[in-house]
Parts: sequence; structure tokens; C-alpha cells
Amino acid sequence: MSNLSRLYSDRAGKMRKSEIRELLKVAQDPEIISFAGGLPSPQSFPLTELEEISAEVLKENGPTALQYGTTEGVLQLREDIARQSKKEGMKDVSAENIIITSGSQQALDVVGKMFLNPGDLAIVELPSYLGGLNAFRAYECNLAGVPLVDDGMDVDALDEKLKCLKKDGLEPKFIYVVPTYQNPAGVVMPEKKRKKLIDVANEYDLLVVEDDPYGKLNYDGHHVKPIKAFDDEDRVIYMSTFSKILAPGFRLAWTVASEELTRKMMICKQAVDLCTNTFSQYIASEFMRRGSLDLHIMKITEMYKPKRDLMMAELKQHMPNGYKCNEPGGGMFAWVTLPEGIDTEIMFLDALKEKVAYVHGKAFCVDGTGGRSMRLNFSYADPSLISDGVERLGRVIKRNLK
Amino acid sequence: MSNLSRLYSDRAGKMRKSEIRELLKVAQDPEIISFAGGLPSPQSFPLTELEEISAEVLKENGPTALQYGTTEGVLQLREDIARQSKKEGMKDVSAENIIITSGSQQALDVVGKMFLNPGDLAIVELPSYLGGLNAFRAYECNLAGVPLVDDGMDVDALDEKLKCLKKDGLEPKFIYVVPTYQNPAGVVMPEKKRKKLIDVANEYDLLVVEDDPYGKLNYDGHHVKPIKAFDDEDRVIYMSTFSKILAPGFRLAWTVASEELTRKMMICKQAVDLCTNTFSQYIASEFMRRGSLDLHIMKITEMYKPKRDLMMAELKQHMPNGYKCNEPGGGMFAWVTLPEGIDTEIMFLDALKEKVAYVHGKAFCVDGTGGRSMRLNFSYADPSLISDGVERLGRVIKRNLK
Repeated sequence: MSNLSRLYSDRAGKMRKSEIRELLKVAQDPEIISFAGGLPSPQSFPLTELEEISAEVLKENGPTALQYGTTEGVLQLREDIARQSKKEGMKDVSAENIIITSGSQQALDVVGKMFLNPGDLAIVELPSYLGGLNAFRAYECNLAGVPLVDDGMDVDALDEKLKCLKKDGLEPKFIYVVPTYQNPAGVVMPEKKRKKLIDVANEYDLLVVEDDPYGKLNYDGHHVKPIKAFDDEDRVIYMSTFSKILAPGFRLAWTVASEELTRKMMICKQAVDLCTNTFSQYIASEFMRRGSLDLHIMKITEMYKPKRDLMMAELKQHMPNGYKCNEPGGGMFAWVTLPEGIDTEIMFLDALKEKVAYVHGKAFCVDGTGGRSMRLNFSYADPSLISDGVERLGRVIKRNLK
Repeated sequence: MSNLSRLYSDRAGKMRKSEIRELLKVAQDPEIISFAGGLPSPQSFPLTELEEISAEVLKENGPTALQYGTTEGVLQLREDIARQSKKEGMKDVSAENIIITSGSQQALDVVGKMFLNPGDLAIVELPSYLGGLNAFRAYECNLAGVPLVDDGMDVDALDEKLKCLKKDGLEPKFIYVVPTYQNPAGVVMPEKKRKKLIDVANEYDLLVVEDDPYGKLNYDGHHVKPIKAFDDEDRVIYMSTFSKILAPGFRLAWTVASEELTRKMMICKQAVDLCTNTFSQYIASEFMRRGSLDLHIMKITEMYKPKRDLMMAELKQHMPNGYKCNEPGGGMFAWVTLPEGIDTEIMFLDALKEKVAYVHGKAFCVDGTGGRSMRLNFSYADPSLISDGVERLGRVIKRNLK
């Protein structure tokens, strides 16, 4: 047999099987309680209404909903999202500023395609969303981390870093932030700091990529406007998704950006998939038009809030002295940092033996830190499993602390 | 306002708005009869059955069909496709050889990502599928054309070209072919020639990318086995799609390749969109399991065959002396070459004035030829519009021949 791997591109040659993915495959054993994925609760899906809406879409718009669509997405859905974005504080948003993508992952990939040459630099949070890191790494770039503090990215440290880079003649292509209920750390950047981040971006004439999948999963009533709301110089590409508030299986997300950036992203997306699933776009649009999305978000926050509370309570009971975990005000994740002496990557195999899974902290940190941390998802598992799972985890940690 | 375009990657800097796309936007005027797109007839979609199946999927598999899926795709659909592929003559195909992609365009993009460095060479047909060319060009490669003859790619010319390249120390990354009812030319490569192509690929130890969206749209009963059926050395990546035989709006296609190539493609796809739309995958699988896909293909070939015949008859009546058009045995396109003195790109604006649209031939040819040709789609327009449209086209051509 021929060895065609000699033909691989440089970028593909460097891409390795994700260890995390392999570990998570092992975690699919039904006896394992998994806090690893970022999955919505399967009980959250509005099955009956989606059945009704699917039928309605096929009856009323079948020939269009099953046909090729435009690369930028179905106009009525882009209009729905533009209206919604304005309500959330973004200025002058119209359908012309919006692209419907095949999940946020595609939006992240398009950002990578559009900006990153091999060897280019982008700035990410420490820790940062794994899927974002993977999307950018596929373009053979370098990623520099700026630490998170309890209220999001440390903007003073960012400023300092940019100053140093400038001195060395280096310019990062963009700053990637998940400012609301951050994945994995769960923290929120307050409004004042968002404005400061924009000031820094203006000063250095930088692009900001604002990834906001969790903003609407708010359990304590504190809504913060997106960074994009303060973006008077059109330097923010905002992205959000239906995956966490409706259904990941639809693979629907969107970007909000200036018309110029939107046009360029469209050209990049065109070569990648022609258009996003049209049928799902019509379903999501009808779901919004009925007012069902807002009601559904209320329903799922009511479902996830007690799960969050339960996980926090169980952690208090089962984690060792000296553990740290901010109470996440929203989103899907708890970020637990354990006392010295633990390596969560090494401990993972032991956790699997105890039939419980998480994602170890190093996976989220581009500088090799995070070894004492782990990300725990609380949206997916049933309450009784959250209790059992944290208890199991407590046992594993105790064993590993000795 | 800041000019962020200075931050664009080299690849994005080179990507231009597709002129074709701009022209086609103009062609969306409802008074224009468009032969330009590659769209199925909107009357072909099995709306009632899809309504039934959508409801069934949500009732029986809702929580899974709306959740994230694996990158490679829903297992039962991959098994369905593996069975189908074996029936079509491909050997030893199992679910492990199959990835479900977001349309064939994504499969083409993944091939580009996996094999093409900037400056690399790939071999394509003259003329070749525009979407394939765009996918590969996004990776800043060079494309060399090998002419099509009446029975597909000229394999002797290919052999000659490879010999010359080898002499210069150059090795193409792959050969991209659409062997059955080629887009745009409509021709079919016979079995004997497919074997010869494989022999050449074996001799030069090359990768072959076989794109087969139209193989099942067969109007004259001559089924030819895919090139992949003769691929004893695992050097063919085969791809096909549900877009032309069920619904483009589902964005569902698939690849068949060796396990090794499949694993690498999966890693490349992972960074791009995590997974393909799960809901659509369940719908397509149920459509296959009911035996409805085969019946539906019979229905649409019965719908398209008279359209093909009608277009051929109208061309005979309205095209000028000396025009050339092979009768396509299947697929969706007629490829018309006009007498000397016509430039179909220049003529396009005149055609729009006459309210008829096509895609000009140069768009499909990487060497700048094709200026006298145009691609006409016969699957989309209603029969009465096919007649009117070809008549209008005849008038435009007569005017331009003077």
C-alpha cells in the first residue's frame, strides 16, 4: 500500500488526534458520570414545538427551506437576530451585519482563515475555550495568553503585553475573549472593564473576537451588555449560537460585524460550505418569531440554576480544603482548582476508574498552566448524577492528594 | 474608522468577491429565466414524507437528533451509506471509511486543508467544477488543467503531463475528477478508462479525488461503477451528496476513503465545525431505511429526463450552425460551445437584458479557455421556461454573432 501521508500539507502534518477527544470517547461508557462535555441537557429540547414548527416550515416554505440558500444565511433569520442584537445594546445592526454559520466553530474557523498566516500571533485568555484554540491552531499560529482574574481578562496585563509586543515590533492579529460566563472559568467581565478593553483595542488599533455562547444562560439576573455594544470603531466580531439555547444538532450560530468584515467573512465561508443548513435556519427563525425562544431560555435557566446550585453545594461537601471555585453566575461550567500536589491530567485515568469524567485544566491553557484545575459541566447530567459524580470525584482527589 | 484589512491573512487578501456570484445575484430578478445555478427542481422535494419523517425523528430520537454528534457523523447513516457504497461496487466499505460532511463543498475544503500548502500543485479537468476550484484556490495552490474529451479526462494527456512534471521534479498533490455526468461538461468516463486512470495513479503513486454528485441522476440506464470501485491501493477519496438526490438545504454529503485518510480528514473537520447537522442526518437515514431514497431517485430522473430532452430539442432549434453540445446522459447540465466570434463572458450582460442567465465557460477553465462555451442547467426551470429561455438565448447569440 502506498503511504499517502507524504502528501499531507504542513498544517495537516502538525494536526494530531485530540487527546481530549480520545479521553472523552472512553468517557462514553454509560456507567461513567460525565462532567466533561459542554452539552445542554437532553431534557431541555422543546421536542413537541419543534415537531410542530418543522411541519409548518415544510408546509409553508418547503421548496425554499430545502433548497440551497445564500452564503450569509436566510434573510428573515438574519433580520430576527439583528432585532435581538439591538435589544441587547449593539448599535446600528441590520441583516447586512450578520452571517449565519454552521455552529460557532465555523465562525472561529472563518476568523482563523481570514486573519492568520502561519507564525502569526493571536491573544487568548488563560484559560480559554478549547474549540477556539483548536480552530486557530489549525492555521499554524502562535497563541499568547493573558490571565483571567475574577472579573474576566486582566486588561492591565493585556495592556502591558501589547506594549512589550509593540516594542519588539510584533502585532497580534486579534484578541479572543469569552467575556460572559467564560468557558471554562465561568467568570463575567463587568461593563466598566469591557469599555476599558475597547479603549485598549482602540489605542493599539486591534481586532477583538467576542465569543458569547452563554450570555443568555443567566442565573442571577445580572445582564451585562456585550463588548460589541461599546464598539464605536467597528473592531469587534461578535459571535453567538443557538447550540446552548435551542439545539446543538441544528449547527446554527451567527456573527455580528461591520459590513466590510462581514463581506470578507462571507467570501471565506463561501469556499468552505456554500451555505448553512437552510431547513434548520427556517425552524430557528419560526421559533424566534413565535416568541418561543425567550420563553425557552427562561425554561432552561430555571432548569440549570438548581443544577448549578447543587454542584456548588456538592463541591463544598466533597472537595478538599483549599480548593477554589468561583460560583458561576451563568453558563454551563464550574472551574475547580485543587490544592498543590494534584495533576488533573494524570488524575483523569484514576477518575475514569471511579466512573467520573471531567476535562483537565491544561487543555485550556496555552502556556502549560492549569495543571491543578478541571472543568466540570453542570447542565448535562441529571441532579442525582451530579451528586454522585462529585462524590466520586471527591474520593479520587482524596486518594491523589496523599 | 480603523482599516482592519491590513490584518487579513495572505490567503484572505487574495480572495476576491466571486464575479460569478455577483452576476448570479443580478440573475435573481424573477423575470430572468436562469439556467445558471446547479439547483434541483423545487417541485422535486418529497415534502409530505419529510414532514412525516421529521416528526418521527423528533418523537423517536429527539434528544439525540438535537444534540451534538460525533465529527464523523451519525453511525446509522454511515452504515446506510456503507451498504449503499458496496452495492455500487466499492469494496470493503464500512462505517469506519465514511465521514458525513456539511455538503460536498466541506469535503472539498477538507481535502484542500489536508493536502495543499501555498504553491502546491493539483490537477483538475478542463473544464472543472467551479466550487472545487474555489475550495482549492482558497489554499493558495496552483491548478493545472488536463483536457476533457467526449469520454472524460484525457488520460493519455494526464500521463504526458505527469511525465513532464516528474522531469521537472514536481509532484501534484492530487487529481480532482468528476467522472460521471461531469459538471459542467456532462460527459461520462467509461469503466475501461477509469481502470486506466487508476493504473496511472498507481504508477505515479498519486491521490485521486473523485467527486460524484450526479452518478445517480442517470437518464439512459448506463450505470458505471465509481473509480473508487477499482481502487485496490486505497488512493481514492470518493465523495457524493444528498444535495442532488434529496435536498440541498440539509447540507449533507459524505466521503469514502481508507481508514487512515478518514481519520486525518476527521481531525481536519473537527477544527472546522465540530460536527455536521445531526437532525438532518437522522432524517436522511430514515429516508434511506424506508427505501424512499431509491424511489425518490426514480421519481426525479423521470422528472429531469424530459427536461434534458426538451433542452436538447430547443438547442437544436435555436442555436446557430456550428454549435456543439454533447447530449448529457445524466446530471443537470448541458455544455454548449458556440462558433468562433462569441465571448460568452461579454455576452452575459446582453443575455441579462434578454432576461436569460447562464454561467460562462471561462469560469470553469483554469487555463483561461472556455470563452466560447456556457453551462446551462436543465433541472431547475419549468419546461415552458426552458423553451422560452433557450429561445431568448438564441436571439442573444444571433445578435452577438454579427
